[in-house]
Amino acid sequence: MKSAKEYLKSIEELKIRVYLNGEKVDSIIKNPVTKTVVDAMAKIYELAQNPSYQDIMTAYSPLIQERINRSVHLFQSKEDLEKRVKMAILTSRLLGTCNYRCPGCDILNGLASTTYEMDKKMGTKYHEKLINYVKWVQKNDLAVSGSVTDVKGDRGKRPKEQDPDMYVRVVEKRDDGIIVRGAKIHQSGAIAAHEHLVIPGTAFRKGEEEYAVAFAVPSGSKGLTYICQYTPEDAERLAAEDQYQLGNPLYGIRETCMIIFDDVFVPWDRVFMCGEIEFTGILVSRFARTHRMTCGGACKVGFGDLMIGAAQAVAEYLGISNAPHVREKIVEMVRINETLHACAVAAAFRGMEEPEGSGIYLPDRMFSNVAKLNCAEGFWRLMALLGDICGGLAATMPSERELKNPETSEYIKKYLKARVSAEKRMRITKFIQNWVASPHGVGTWHGAGSIEAQKIEIYRTVNLEEKRKLAENLAGIKD
Amino acid sequence: MKSAKEYLKSIEELKIRVYLNGEKVDSIIKNPVTKTVVDAMAKIYELAQNPSYQDIMTAYSPLIQERINRSVHLFQSKEDLEKRVKMAILTSRLLGTCNYRCPGCDILNGLASTTYEMDKKMGTKYHEKLINYVKWVQKNDLAVSGSVTDVKGDRGKRPKEQDPDMYVRVVEKRDDGIIVRGAKIHQSGAIAAHEHLVIPGTAFRKGEEEYAVAFAVPSGSKGLTYICQYTPEDAERLAAEDQYQLGNPLYGIRETCMIIFDDVFVPWDRVFMCGEIEFTGILVSRFARTHRMTCGGACKVGFGDLMIGAAQAVAEYLGISNAPHVREKIVEMVRINETLHACAVAAAFRGMEEPEGSGIYLPDRMFSNVAKLNCAEGFWRLMALLGDICGGLAATMPSERELKNPETSEYIKKYLKARVSAEKRMRITKFIQNWVASPHGVGTWHGAGSIEAQKIEIYRTVNLEEKRKLAENLAGIKD
Amino acid sequence: MKSAKEYLKSIEELKIRVYLNGEKVDSIIKNPVTKTVVDAMAKIYELAQNPSYQDIMTAYSPLIQERINRSVHLFQSKEDLEKRVKMAILTSRLLGTCNYRCPGCDILNGLASTTYEMDKKMGTKYHEKLINYVKWVQKNDLAVSGSVTDVKGDRGKRPKEQDPDMYVRVVEKRDDGIIVRGAKIHQSGAIAAHEHLVIPGTAFRKGEEEYAVAFAVPSGSKGLTYICQYTPEDAERLAAEDQYQLGNPLYGIRETCMIIFDDVFVPWDRVFMCGEIEFTGILVSRFARTHRMTCGGACKVGFGDLMIGAAQAVAEYLGISNAPHVREKIVEMVRINETLHACAVAAAFRGMEEPEGSGIYLPDRMFSNVAKLNCAEGFWRLMALLGDICGGLAATMPSERELKNPETSEYIKKYLKARVSAEKRMRITKFIQNWVASPHGVGTWHGAGSIEAQKIEIYRTVNLEEKRKLAENLAGIKD
Amino acid sequence: MKSAKEYLKSIEELKIRVYLNGEKVDSIIKNPVTKTVVDAMAKIYELAQNPSYQDIMTAYSPLIQERINRSVHLFQSKEDLEKRVKMAILTSRLLGTCNYRCPGCDILNGLASTTYEMDKKMGTKYHEKLINYVKWVQKNDLAVSGSVTDVKGDRGKRPKEQDPDMYVRVVEKRDDGIIVRGAKIHQSGAIAAHEHLVIPGTAFRKGEEEYAVAFAVPSGSKGLTYICQYTPEDAERLAAEDQYQLGNPLYGIRETCMIIFDDVFVPWDRVFMCGEIEFTGILVSRFARTHRMTCGGACKVGFGDLMIGAAQAVAEYLGISNAPHVREKIVEMVRINETLHACAVAAAFRGMEEPEGSGIYLPDRMFSNVAKLNCAEGFWRLMALLGDICGGLAATMPSERELKNPETSEYIKKYLKARVSAEKRMRITKFIQNWVASPHGVGTWHGAGSIEAQKIEIYRTVNLEEKRKLAENLAGIKD
Repeated sequence: MKSAKEYLKSIEELKIRVYLNGEKVDSIIKNPVTKTVVDAMAKIYELAQNPSYQDIMTAYSPLIQERINRSVHLFQSKEDLEKRVKMAILTSRLLGTCNYRCPGCDILNGLASTTYEMDKKMGTKYHEKLINYVKWVQKNDLAVSGSVTDVKGDRGKRPKEQDPDMYVRVVEKRDDGIIVRGAKIHQSGAIAAHEHLVIPGTAFRKGEEEYAVAFAVPSGSKGLTYICQYTPEDAERLAAEDQYQLGNPLYGIRETCMIIFDDVFVPWDRVFMCGEIEFTGILVSRFARTHRMTCGGACKVGFGDLMIGAAQAVAEYLGISNAPHVREKIVEMVRINETLHACAVAAAFRGMEEPEGSGIYLPDRMFSNVAKLNCAEGFWRLMALLGDICGGLAATMPSERELKNPETSEYIKKYLKARVSAEKRMRITKFIQNWVASPHGVGTWHGAGSIEAQKIEIYRTVNLEEKRKLAENLAGIKD
Repeated sequence: MKSAKEYLKSIEELKIRVYLNGEKVDSIIKNPVTKTVVDAMAKIYELAQNPSYQDIMTAYSPLIQERINRSVHLFQSKEDLEKRVKMAILTSRLLGTCNYRCPGCDILNGLASTTYEMDKKMGTKYHEKLINYVKWVQKNDLAVSGSVTDVKGDRGKRPKEQDPDMYVRVVEKRDDGIIVRGAKIHQSGAIAAHEHLVIPGTAFRKGEEEYAVAFAVPSGSKGLTYICQYTPEDAERLAAEDQYQLGNPLYGIRETCMIIFDDVFVPWDRVFMCGEIEFTGILVSRFARTHRMTCGGACKVGFGDLMIGAAQAVAEYLGISNAPHVREKIVEMVRINETLHACAVAAAFRGMEEPEGSGIYLPDRMFSNVAKLNCAEGFWRLMALLGDICGGLAATMPSERELKNPETSEYIKKYLKARVSAEKRMRITKFIQNWVASPHGVGTWHGAGSIEAQKIEIYRTVNLEEKRKLAENLAGIKD
Repeated sequence: MKSAKEYLKSIEELKIRVYLNGEKVDSIIKNPVTKTVVDAMAKIYELAQNPSYQDIMTAYSPLIQERINRSVHLFQSKEDLEKRVKMAILTSRLLGTCNYRCPGCDILNGLASTTYEMDKKMGTKYHEKLINYVKWVQKNDLAVSGSVTDVKGDRGKRPKEQDPDMYVRVVEKRDDGIIVRGAKIHQSGAIAAHEHLVIPGTAFRKGEEEYAVAFAVPSGSKGLTYICQYTPEDAERLAAEDQYQLGNPLYGIRETCMIIFDDVFVPWDRVFMCGEIEFTGILVSRFARTHRMTCGGACKVGFGDLMIGAAQAVAEYLGISNAPHVREKIVEMVRINETLHACAVAAAFRGMEEPEGSGIYLPDRMFSNVAKLNCAEGFWRLMALLGDICGGLAATMPSERELKNPETSEYIKKYLKARVSAEKRMRITKFIQNWVASPHGVGTWHGAGSIEAQKIEIYRTVNLEEKRKLAENLAGIKD
Repeated sequence: MKSAKEYLKSIEELKIRVYLNGEKVDSIIKNPVTKTVVDAMAKIYELAQNPSYQDIMTAYSPLIQERINRSVHLFQSKEDLEKRVKMAILTSRLLGTCNYRCPGCDILNGLASTTYEMDKKMGTKYHEKLINYVKWVQKNDLAVSGSVTDVKGDRGKRPKEQDPDMYVRVVEKRDDGIIVRGAKIHQSGAIAAHEHLVIPGTAFRKGEEEYAVAFAVPSGSKGLTYICQYTPEDAERLAAEDQYQLGNPLYGIRETCMIIFDDVFVPWDRVFMCGEIEFTGILVSRFARTHRMTCGGACKVGFGDLMIGAAQAVAEYLGISNAPHVREKIVEMVRINETLHACAVAAAFRGMEEPEGSGIYLPDRMFSNVAKLNCAEGFWRLMALLGDICGGLAATMPSERELKNPETSEYIKKYLKARVSAEKRMRITKFIQNWVASPHGVGTWHGAGSIEAQKIEIYRTVNLEEKRKLAENLAGIKD
């Protein structure tokens, strides 16, 4: 497995076209914003080599019969799923931001399950190609980024009723491979990955075969352009002279980008779906099922732990940690967070091999969708409660640079101290601001799919017929 | 194991002093209200002998090396806990009311865990006595009812600052046993059990040793009086000529009673705690932990399935099952219900042997308390949503007797029909009324302890120190 | 104006065909269930003659130039609307149930506004007929019940796609009047009114003219049959030997009935709409607008005051009124209740003459619909909180008859006492049960229309275009 | 009255010591961040001279018998209060941020009411001094900023148990005036006002007389230092080359500062309270009562209108405005917003002269506190719903500078277009980001006091005794 240093070196060598705030990024390792992604990724490599985390961060791969980074593992059991949950919680707790490896990991598993079934039913050879790809990724310990969400354009129209490139599609099939065009958006950490694994973002219908395409391309392939997000938090980081004046000093907020596929060539051995529209919905649903467990019930639980911890810290600093209303709010935060957690744990433990014989384990479809749906609502509530306990300073705090300004520093030290120094209080307050006055709420809501997507999955999963009959039976209603 | 018939016979032979609506109940098997309890209990015995449910309803007891009713099992593993969850869901789905066996079962386990620790730390012999008692119960396949909640009197006062009998207590210690006095309240189904297992309802302090008492007494022991609840639903049942005009025809609503202990004698071999105040809190917490998983995340999930099923049924009957707002509400009901379910599944799977070496498995303390807390809020919401879909008729429906009234029956048949006959619609509507216009909301809220009790347990369980340090660490705050 | 005694006499003389629980009601004044309606109605007459309430309960009618019962007043100003709000709160506070006069009052006003406009636009003469009718009602101080909700049958079908009588309709037009057929449901207190005012329950379309009918008929007209609701609370009341063992001793729960119109003749001077489909939606909306202010923001606020009062009472009885969590819950109850109240007050104060020149004042359409929508959700929450504070006894209390049972009364007195006697505690607990374990939740939700009806009105009322432009303008977006 | 130009000139002449991000601000008119405050203030002056807004933005002052800016008006009637509400909504709709005049206005009224009572009861002369001050302010049309919130330090300690300067206090009384020391925080727009009106932030007790101080000082007085907040949004604005790449281009987010009072001299004629501890609670409560109506039920309603408008705009741009779930969410946003609105309207209309004879009108205490409490919760919900409709782009959008970057602009134009151009969509998305990923949630929660402050006021205002008696009476409970 790669060390963090080896990872950094491998990334440094990539030549990729990245833009941020209207300008080209010369070095993603040096630019203060893109650097947070690289550092978070490097931390994942580092954790995998830390003996105390090895059981969680790595797995034994039966494919290459070696210990591997769990982020590129195909889940073989319920225990694997449970450790997947633990890994996401752990990394969130230690990074305070995206670990940037989840979508890739969850797509690998969704694809493995789906290609197995495709091959069985359609006589295709996708599964074998995918397994070969996975082996290569595992052996070289590569970071694989996942690409799902299309830009969509006018959502009231099908792909072909508008500019046909609003969903990534095959524009040409050649003997040696395919040419793809389009753009994927909200790609967390894609700039610092070695590989991109691309799948459809929705189910497609007859006549839309060109959109039913799944494939892998190396980062920096010809035709790829990355355009980074630009938020107020990014602007603040670019302007900061000292990252310790920022809310999550080392790792910042989740950084995403758009990836433009401008007629990119993909050889056939990296194509895992090409035209099989009937499997697009299945693939998306299986990926989503794994990803919603991870996002809704694990990643955000780690964040929740940090928010609860920050609430407790600031309450102690302010001298209010024993006030009944503060305890009540802390308990409410814990209730929300552990509810999400329980959904993921249940999803993992009720996981199952799917399809039978594939050897791939997917979490329970109901619980994973419920995890994410609860998370969307719950996370905003965590924000509100944390903001309540911290007080208005989370919105109105002066810059920590004032601590070094001779004309104001004595005022700040005197008037912002509490049970602790002004510096400590400002640090936790800035950390809290990063959670409560930032893109976290809306990002959490939409990450792993909007709530309507989860509702549809829940409606499809629930057995209403069975429940109706139970009720009718007890009510004494016969057919 | 007893058959339902054998159970009925054994109950018929009990001579117990039961009062309902100001009158003595001559036969609890014949009285229309108490009969629902007996019938529900009998159904549990029946299910245990039904091969399709055997894996869930029965267990193998290592104590007597036989298959037993799971309701008197001491849990030996996480799988046992998971099946405990499944059993509660199953019985709720089939009864539509309390199965009346949960508190007894959960107290047995809480006591087994606690007496093991007591004996270890205090050199007492409670565990051995309890195990002997459990063996006897298992061999004779008895129904054991659990008694926890004291009447409490003035809650602003400690037990000895008021009438000292407001909490069950030892009034005399004799060579052969103890004399207990007091009353337990909210005792679900106690009238139809063979045995009562009594534990303290709260933690007691130094000087309150007389209240630290746990014991078992046979139903109908000298000095015991049972005073049943009397609700509008009970009145309706007493007045009904045909139980099929009632909301849950066969099994009704949960029936509880007060049990008065008027100087009841308990021999020493049935006393499992006597004065060990330091273990009262532990015992209550361990019982509650098991019981909150069962109540909040299993029993009510079975009810929720019936409510969802009834919502779907009535929506189909009315021709609105495809309206977007109806689907949205069904999904919301499912989300709530499966969230509770997930909490229980997670509590079971994260269960653990406690104390180590005892062989007794208890569910995860956090998840079980969260299950019940979510349930308290969630159940009212299920009621509101079911009531929405059913329409105002759930509150305003005429009696089903009108269907047999020659002067009104044609009107009713004509004007209350929908996609189905008026009769069918009235049946499902009455069933729904039983859920949405009944004691279910407040009963669910308080069953297994009020929400404040759960909040206290959650606050005690969460590791705030660890979370605070994680936050401070990421924020760059050093000591 | 009629005294309560005169009202009772006038009702006694009515010969109406009323059925309850499958049997004919001989005397609605004597039957324990129907009597609660009569008594509540009588109380309204009594309050109107009580000098302390005169300003609220009566109004000066410019039509007959006399002081009248406000329940038959046409609102002339915002102050009238505000007093309407106060009247509803007052009567709810004093009755603890429906005052049974609201729908009639609110329909009178909706009709007056709509007939004025109809006559203007269509050249009809409905308004004059209505005003004459109102004068007659005012002079004779009659109780007018309102009938709106049709039974609807299959809601997936239009009226003529199914049994055409599922909505009240004109089956024959004659020289002297019309013949109507159908049934109205959820008619609160209709059995104890002198008059029924009937309007369409929804908007009708071209081809459905027979359903666009509004008219008045005297109670007990030929062809009218009343079939009462039958709930567990009704059963309990029928069985009770002493009404003081019931939850709301004097006035019970809201009693409704179905009214069957079996080819009822209505003379032309009592027909206020006949075929004008384009005004059905307007009429329903104007009625609803007034009624939702009254129901959602006034009637239920009076109930809320009783629930808050009961919560405070039981908290004091139990010795917990100063516990922080109890105070928090009381405040939450007050917040909810005063929010509903504010919506009604705002609806009244922002009321307006509509149509201009009509002299009729209607409340603000947005605020009144918001009042009802908030109420639907808020009322369930009030129930949950009240149930929390009361404790499980609200579900499990023995009959108060036990207090008179020599074999149990000492036990009950001893074990159900708190800071007050068992009797007092049982009385408040039974009163609370009446709110938290009864049809109130679902009845409040659907009364004045289901939440979907309010949502539609809100969507129609809001000016999205204006708001969109404000946003675009600030965002710097030009066309 | 001043024109916007005259205002700007008057502000330019002020010499005040302002710091932002660790540096001195040379010109608050030119600095991109402080400029937004000045521009918003100028807009208020401009609106007051706009004939279409004159009725709302100005008032007739009986004190100077001239038309004045309503922001410095003493409310003479319920109509004045209602126009106060309308003014706040209007300015929020047109600015999309704080109008910076509310606290000053609401304190003027709270002080006028309280000093009237103080003088009556204590024989002091504060009211006359205050009226003279108000006349001078009105004649010169000055912007008065209000200062309430102390920095507080350790909230577990009273002011004198810690550094005594954690609450603003009198450190010296001289013949000609007093010397004050301390700091006020969260001061919205204070840097661009002419005057600061300072009152205690909480109730003080015997022995804490030095903290019971209210006074006015001119902006830029000797000893005053202003330290501005520094948020990511401020950083982004400082870095932006074109304000139209920002979320609320012209007026930005609410800008606040700390004001340090480093031994500032205040002459006696500007001191309006000095030592009268018994009136500190009253003063805070009366100010809060007015301010919570304004903040919770008016200012935020204007913001809500913008959020609803932005939701509708982006839904139309994306082609989803007719999806049922989008309509449902828009309706939910409207419900929340109009609920807050109703609370303020009711608070204004139920306003009253207080104390009698003072001529000063204050809004209803219950409704105003309820307005703010509902707003705290409601605003986060508006954010969540707006974020839902906009989609993840609110978190992940690239910089609008990409539109001018030749290497990326074609990609952006192609892939971010929807039913409208990429530019339009990006503009509304950035505007939305300003609401959903910014300090608005936590700022709204704490503005006008934390929710606990409102809960305390509600508990003090509600008449529980009356409600308890109503419940007991109906339940048949006699003393």
